[in-house]
Amino acid sequence: MVTNAHLETAIDYHFSDKGLLQQALTHRSHSSHHNERLEFLGDSVLNFVVAALLFQRFPRIDEGDLSRLRANLVKQSSLADIAQKLELSQYLRLGEGELKSGGFRRPSILADTVEAIFGAVFLDSGFDAAQKVIARQYAPILQNVDPQTLGKDPKTLLQELLQGRKLDLPLYTVVATHGAAHNQMFEVECTVPALDIKVGAAGSSRRAAEQLAATQAIASIQQLVPAKGAASRSRARKSTQLSLPVAVPQERK
Amino acid sequence: MVTNAHLETAIDYHFSDKGLLQQALTHRSHSSHHNERLEFLGDSVLNFVVAALLFQRFPRIDEGDLSRLRANLVKQSSLADIAQKLELSQYLRLGEGELKSGGFRRPSILADTVEAIFGAVFLDSGFDAAQKVIARQYAPILQNVDPQTLGKDPKTLLQELLQGRKLDLPLYTVVATHGAAHNQMFEVECTVPALDIKVGAAGSSRRAAEQLAATQAIASIQQLVPAKGAASRSRARKSTQLSLPVAVPQERK
Repeated sequence: MVTNAHLETAIDYHFSDKGLLQQALTHRSHSSHHNERLEFLGDSVLNFVVAALLFQRFPRIDEGDLSRLRANLVKQSSLADIAQKLELSQYLRLGEGELKSGGFRRPSILADTVEAIFGAVFLDSGFDAAQKVIARQYAPILQNVDPQTLGKDPKTLLQELLQGRKLDLPLYTVVATHGAAHNQMFEVECTVPALDIKVGAAGSSRRAAEQLAATQAIASIQQLVPAKGAASRSRARKSTQLSLPVAVPQERK
Repeated sequence: MVTNAHLETAIDYHFSDKGLLQQALTHRSHSSHHNERLEFLGDSVLNFVVAALLFQRFPRIDEGDLSRLRANLVKQSSLADIAQKLELSQYLRLGEGELKSGGFRRPSILADTVEAIFGAVFLDSGFDAAQKVIARQYAPILQNVDPQTLGKDPKTLLQELLQGRKLDLPLYTVVATHGAAHNQMFEVECTVPALDIKVGAAGSSRRAAEQLAATQAIASIQQLVPAKGAASRSRARKSTQLSLPVAVPQERK
């Protein structure tokens, strides 16, 4: 059976006050001594530490890009990923209802608990310790951050890709809708006339379908350009470097 | 003539790298080495420090109330107040256009510069120094924070006041509108039947007029209750303790 000591090893921090870690792992459905105040504190120390890490790592990007990157790194799904790596679900203290409904897998509960742990470390030992614990979790993530693309949605990326080549903007057309009002599916076509690209995608909203179609258009461009041969090699390099963001559409924190 | 050294004395912090303070005081209209990245950093350290101060000072309020209090303490007008106390406008470096249009008095520029200074202190000496500088500016403000009322709008306060006495909710009625569509005035009446209160107010939106009317209703209740005599003294104490928030309507940070 795992104990909280395993979790302390996983985050490479050992609490002086073990009760703080216990509280950080306690969902409000479990008991009144729960983690929500710690989560408030942890959310703010996390936001600050990630801001400072980005500020240092990207000395030339402007504050708008810094904000976009940070929003992406501290959003619920990013924190839930950290929770998964820590195998956090096995340490959670949930009420019966949450247990039965699978609360230990719910991204919101996992993300909130990660924040609460950061808050608990700050309370236990101060800022430097919290910074160290947070930086350790974010080190592998920061290594893969592409400041040009992270957190941008596919439509924006496609637009920027075409603008960078001085090509006309893509066109999106709804070609069909299916289903009843509360459960509609939208079929959307995205065309990039200058590159002779036409791709289609479906989604439960027009926006979602357009974003998916843009993802496919980007993939098509990336396949297309390297095949053009030596004459456009510099272009090809540019387009194959483009990395896609993971989330579609973007979540709000 | 004032120099930046006077400002350092005012915030009780002396920079090792005087260039950082200079940059913090430089608006983007002035030159390219401006303060916007520092503002990003300062905004996050400020949010965290104020979160930690509130967490410590109010050990029993929940995270929702902590968030509301913090939002109120770090909003633009609160930061602009701090800027005024520091007489910050005389240290700002603005472009010609901003100078001519009175940018040194603009709350957004003043607030952003305060944040940039906090960010610069963090870069210059680390977290503890930034925390000290921020805590010093917030000490007098925190002393006067009423966690029950700060940041709540008058309609909410009036509703809570009446609910606390188990009285029916107030009624708001638009009694007249004046002026053309783009420049309308709304006259609103607020009645509290149980206390025989009827007050009126006007505003440029229905919401603004209702908030103003609620403010007047609260004032009426506060005048009314003490006059009721000894029998309801405990009630009177409760109502006269109610302090009003300053801002109507509430600003968003």
